[in-house]
Amino acid sequence: MKAPKWLAAVKFDEKGLVTAVVQDAGDGAVLMVARMNREALLETWRTRRGVYFSRSRRKLWRKGEESGNEQEVLGLFLDCDGDAVLLRVRQKGGAACHTGHRSCFHRDMAGDGLEVRGRPVFDPGQVYKK
Amino acid sequence: MKAPKWLAAVKFDEKGLVTAVVQDAGDGAVLMVARMNREALLETWRTRRGVYFSRSRRKLWRKGEESGNEQEVLGLFLDCDGDAVLLRVRQKGGAACHTGHRSCFHRDMAGDGLEVRGRPVFDPGQVYKK
Repeated sequence: MKAPKWLAAVKFDEKGLVTAVVQDAGDGAVLMVARMNREALLETWRTRRGVYFSRSRRKLWRKGEESGNEQEVLGLFLDCDGDAVLLRVRQKGGAACHTGHRSCFHRDMAGDGLEVRGRPVFDPGQVYKK
Repeated sequence: MKAPKWLAAVKFDEKGLVTAVVQDAGDGAVLMVARMNREALLETWRTRRGVYFSRSRRKLWRKGEESGNEQEVLGLFLDCDGDAVLLRVRQKGGAACHTGHRSCFHRDMAGDGLEVRGRPVFDPGQVYKK
């Protein structure tokens, strides 16, 4: 399959990665941040599913492959300097975070310590039981 | 000034940086992505203004110091693995991007080429004339 023309405008870093910000297309909540390599970005674009590169596992990470909580990509945008993309998604299961919280950004830093905001949408012990 | 307790939970990378996602606190638009070092993060927390670390200039970047388009930080959140923060801000001047566009993510990748969405809110030639 031919690569899209926009690929030339994407500036992968020295590790071959760009930053991906994932936002709920419904209410705009920022759900998570991950990294993508060239392969993950192209697969995301082609399949309209959120696919990332796991730096810890050093391989493609198809979001939802274990939890079932896939991301349907409704919009994909490149930032002005080409090193970050924004995905606007429909999040299956209602939560993007492995903790069961809807958003990975559920720890409030306003005070001296961290305060957890909201409650988990699912029980990680049930979703990641395999 | 004493550092907040949450600082121990922040995982700076090998360059001493974390990813910062900046979101409009009003309508949830994702405005930009930048990096912060320890100093930028603490100054952001203390002053409630968006302060980043410019990798190209290798120094603190107080957003708006040149353009006047400061960011008032209304919320600050840490993600589940501690290597990214989310700022919910009130963006002065109505635009965060140096191009004059409201968001840095104004280039649509849905098709084969990039399509610019929306129009600049300000004229960069006027704002960055110094």
